[in-house]
Amino acid sequence: MSEDKELFPLVGVDVALFSVVDERLKVLLVKRAREPEARRWALPGGLVKPHLDASLAANARRVLADKVAVDLPHLEEVATYSGPDRDPRGWSVMVLFYALLPLDKINAVVRNKVEAVEWADAIAPGHRLAFDHTEQLTAAVKKLRAKVAGDALPLHLLPEKFTLSQLQSVVSIILGHPVDKSSFRRRLKASTQLVELDEFVRGAQRPAQLFRASEAFSF
Amino acid sequence: MSEDKELFPLVGVDVALFSVVDERLKVLLVKRAREPEARRWALPGGLVKPHLDASLAANARRVLADKVAVDLPHLEEVATYSGPDRDPRGWSVMVLFYALLPLDKINAVVRNKVEAVEWADAIAPGHRLAFDHTEQLTAAVKKLRAKVAGDALPLHLLPEKFTLSQLQSVVSIILGHPVDKSSFRRRLKASTQLVELDEFVRGAQRPAQLFRASEAFSF
Repeated sequence: MSEDKELFPLVGVDVALFSVVDERLKVLLVKRAREPEARRWALPGGLVKPHLDASLAANARRVLADKVAVDLPHLEEVATYSGPDRDPRGWSVMVLFYALLPLDKINAVVRNKVEAVEWADAIAPGHRLAFDHTEQLTAAVKKLRAKVAGDALPLHLLPEKFTLSQLQSVVSIILGHPVDKSSFRRRLKASTQLVELDEFVRGAQRPAQLFRASEAFSF
Repeated sequence: MSEDKELFPLVGVDVALFSVVDERLKVLLVKRAREPEARRWALPGGLVKPHLDASLAANARRVLADKVAVDLPHLEEVATYSGPDRDPRGWSVMVLFYALLPLDKINAVVRNKVEAVEWADAIAPGHRLAFDHTEQLTAAVKKLRAKVAGDALPLHLLPEKFTLSQLQSVVSIILGHPVDKSSFRRRLKASTQLVELDEFVRGAQRPAQLFRASEAFSF
């Protein structure tokens, strides 16, 4: 086994799963039940099982289902973290993904190898994280922000039907600053990513129209 | 060994090494000397050696030095390629990096495990590449273009001292379309990435000033 450890690095994935809860960008943390780093908070993740996983993305989906019963609807690769010292079990490569979970489907529960789950503030999680997960979380937030600061609409975070105010609120929560309403509406008007529905919800002043993602939507 | 193959995926790196040669964006290809995919053209790459490599980036630097005698001055991660079928030796994860080599230092030579090297057109390499390397090359070109279409200056491709015309030419070669001279010069004037030198080269009409990367330069 010690010779194998020399020849074969450990390979797996870590996942920064984001959602918007209570008007904040949150990330799912798990309290590890086992060594190494037992009882420390961490991003959920796990090693690839070549006989089970068709890819690293499949590895991420399997691990999140197994540990916290979350079906990942969306996955995006951020970067790899590698070397001899980041995990006491040996030379390791972890591939970091981030994923977005709709704010009406925050359903993580404690399952295997996990003592507790928590939706922590993504910017200031309030725990010292295991391994290099603080660095990983920072990189995942940065990549998500850069994407939304560009032209991508984070519709994966919204319910299936949403108002433009809800969308604007989620964008400004991700970016960490207010978004100008009129230029945001102009940008949405030119977008092919949204479909207007003939449905309305009661707003504070007047009924607000509902929208959904179009077939052309991609994040 | 067959049980190990079930437990431990193969892990390594592939590198899309770009330079500008004869006014074209080129990528370094190697003709593989060994199975699998012997005598097929491929991006240079190789498996991690945990007892030698401090990280996957170190793996990339070691492999490029070993196979084609290139010192990589710059490395950027693109994405991972993984699964049971992409390499006949077993379940594999390859991490793709791209790197930029100055146009005055194109010094790749045939060394270990390689039959030939070639600077091929990066957009139309003219060979069917080994493994999933065609897909990898496309992804690397896309990432490089997106970065240069943003605000990044590809100074790693230029000699240590260069003229603004040389820089504009390299940017337009990467993007695949002409760049407007006056708006490009305005952008450079506002940039903190360049330092003017008190040196000039004879141009077609009048002497052209030389520049170098500033201490603040980052790509």
